Amino acid sequence: MAGLPITLLTDFGFAYTAAMKGRILSIAPDARIVDVSYKIPSHSVREGAFLLRSVVRHFPPAVHVGVVDPGVGTQRRGLILKSGPSYFTGPDNGLLMPAARALGLPEAFEITKQFPRVSRTFHGRDIFAPVAAHLARGESPDDFGVLLANPADLNLDDCEVSGDILTGEVLSVDGFGNAVTNIPASAVAPLLRPGDRLALHGKILPFVETYGEAELHRPLVLVGSHDCLEISVNQGSAAEAFRLKTGDRVQLKVVK
Amino acid sequence: MAGLPITLLTDFGFAYTAAMKGRILSIAPDARIVDVSYKIPSHSVREGAFLLRSVVRHFPPAVHVGVVDPGVGTQRRGLILKSGPSYFTGPDNGLLMPAARALGLPEAFEITKQFPRVSRTFHGRDIFAPVAAHLARGESPDDFGVLLANPADLNLDDCEVSGDILTGEVLSVDGFGNAVTNIPASAVAPLLRPGDRLALHGKILPFVETYGEAELHRPLVLVGSHDCLEISVNQGSAAEAFRLKTGDRVQLKVVK
Amino acid sequence: MAGLPITLLTDFGFAYTAAMKGRILSIAPDARIVDVSYKIPSHSVREGAFLLRSVVRHFPPAVHVGVVDPGVGTQRRGLILKSGPSYFTGPDNGLLMPAARALGLPEAFEITKQFPRVSRTFHGRDIFAPVAAHLARGESPDDFGVLLANPADLNLDDCEVSGDILTGEVLSVDGFGNAVTNIPASAVAPLLRPGDRLALHGKILPFVETYGEAELHRPLVLVGSHDCLEISVNQGSAAEAFRLKTGDRVQLKVVK
Repeated sequence: MAGLPITLLTDFGFAYTAAMKGRILSIAPDARIVDVSYKIPSHSVREGAFLLRSVVRHFPPAVHVGVVDPGVGTQRRGLILKSGPSYFTGPDNGLLMPAARALGLPEAFEITKQFPRVSRTFHGRDIFAPVAAHLARGESPDDFGVLLANPADLNLDDCEVSGDILTGEVLSVDGFGNAVTNIPASAVAPLLRPGDRLALHGKILPFVETYGEAELHRPLVLVGSHDCLEISVNQGSAAEAFRLKTGDRVQLKVVK
Repeated sequence: MAGLPITLLTDFGFAYTAAMKGRILSIAPDARIVDVSYKIPSHSVREGAFLLRSVVRHFPPAVHVGVVDPGVGTQRRGLILKSGPSYFTGPDNGLLMPAARALGLPEAFEITKQFPRVSRTFHGRDIFAPVAAHLARGESPDDFGVLLANPADLNLDDCEVSGDILTGEVLSVDGFGNAVTNIPASAVAPLLRPGDRLALHGKILPFVETYGEAELHRPLVLVGSHDCLEISVNQGSAAEAFRLKTGDRVQLKVVK
Repeated sequence: MAGLPITLLTDFGFAYTAAMKGRILSIAPDARIVDVSYKIPSHSVREGAFLLRSVVRHFPPAVHVGVVDPGVGTQRRGLILKSGPSYFTGPDNGLLMPAARALGLPEAFEITKQFPRVSRTFHGRDIFAPVAAHLARGESPDDFGVLLANPADLNLDDCEVSGDILTGEVLSVDGFGNAVTNIPASAVAPLLRPGDRLALHGKILPFVETYGEAELHRPLVLVGSHDCLEISVNQGSAAEAFRLKTGDRVQLKVVK
């Protein structure tokens, strides 16, 4: 086996991601490369940060490459994070830190090594892919950069439970139309149990354990696979029904 | 080599599928994972069943994971099927059986093993991915479940050839807009030969051997790569031209 | 390791591509398969040729399978190209030659070997996937075909720099909405430097080095990661702003 698997999360689409894979295989011919996504909405650092954080805990030790990078080629730094046996590399714009913190206290490095023929617009291919390939083969982050005290970070956890009012943010709308909030199961556990109801936008939604417990095409709230509250419609789209999109603040009221 | 390759077919989109891959690599670090699709139309068990059946015959012995699962977390059972040297795992809702039958008489097992920390909404990640990883490494389905006499099944082959009338179902509309029916080449072979014509929705279509034999942007019928009749437009979309979608019944009349 | 990696570029969508992967794994169980794209716009040989050429130079020696094949099953030939240690296989319609020429002077072979049970509509699965798997394992193109003197080719480089007028073609609109032209950096280097301006469709665009140097949502021109001029909007879509699409001719005028 050729060292750590390498995951890729970008807003690049197909062909640019393929160029990254080519670079990786040029350095680490046996690399096990896993697509996390190449279709993060363009420039949506926040949504990318959430999705990256949501998947990394399911992986064995790995090198996670995340590139959603509207500041490519400007003064923004290139980053390596080390969390236990796992690595992250990508732009220093907050994309990587929530995921890295989820795996342990990260050590941060600014990439200072000069790579040959670096495009001003595609550091994913010309810097982060090679760095990932070398890290996957067991090289040290010290070979590529210097310790960095203050990597950029994002707070994805700004939510509040106050009396019977739950306030949070839609961190992602998935392909089914489920609106995944950042209100954690642990915060609502004392307050909510199956059979309770919640008010959202003037509608009353049952709090259930799985989608199929609601009537077909009817809305519901449950603790989803992210361990957070999720607003859903059984075999339908909550995003459409409630006009919810990533980044929206939502308020749910417990109605006993 | 690390045992059988593992294929994935889901309606999950990118990130949820990546979580499954992480779980698989945690158990089977050398797993060869192949995406069949993560974009089956949401909850379309029938279309997923067709696409799974259409690809498995081209694979060497493998573990095929199929998860289109509107009933996740309800009483529906988890399933392992064994067809010769190949395995299938996913929900017991008919998704897997047509493909498994195409590879031989399947033996069925209900998954009864308790896995730790199972989400009520994401058995693909928490049950089927681990089961697949263990099967790929050579473990036995007996380690995960008990024999099941009556797995759910779907009939994808409901079609009829009666005189000069061919009746069937559109099982899939592919990315080109070709409407793939379930009318098999073998059933029409005595009736149709290249140069014949077929009536559909009041239009007359030539029966040809390949797309390029029809005029540009003109409709046609041929035996497609699924060995069934396919309604097509040369470099255009038959689905648009004839307003056909998956699940539609179609009737074609032979016009000599 | 199982020989050369195999890349796939098609307009097939998910499931047909999966069938190709199954065939490859049946012949080369350890094959390292890399998706370049399965979503080339249907039948767009020219766009496929550009994207293939744009990625192959980033790969180590490999077998590149390209199938955008409106003429499948007609008289068009099947092709193998050998450029140094890399191979290409697919239809002889110009898709492969620009990429193969980018890697060196290609030797061309017409595929003459008869494969069993070849569909008239899916040579990607029935001919090119098996050929690729065999080539990746070290077999010779001589085993599959005979030397071909005149493979089909495409000219992607038809552009002109005349005085202060730059004329070229949009070869691709990427997922961000950047319009990638075929006007090479080398041709404009004597004429343009950062800080200069260019007129396009009556608007004045700055010539910059990276997207973030333009104001947010404002248009710009730069040398992109393809080493050609790219018309962009900082965190927006130039394709929308200027109604540009693949295949359009564009004219830029230098305005000092």
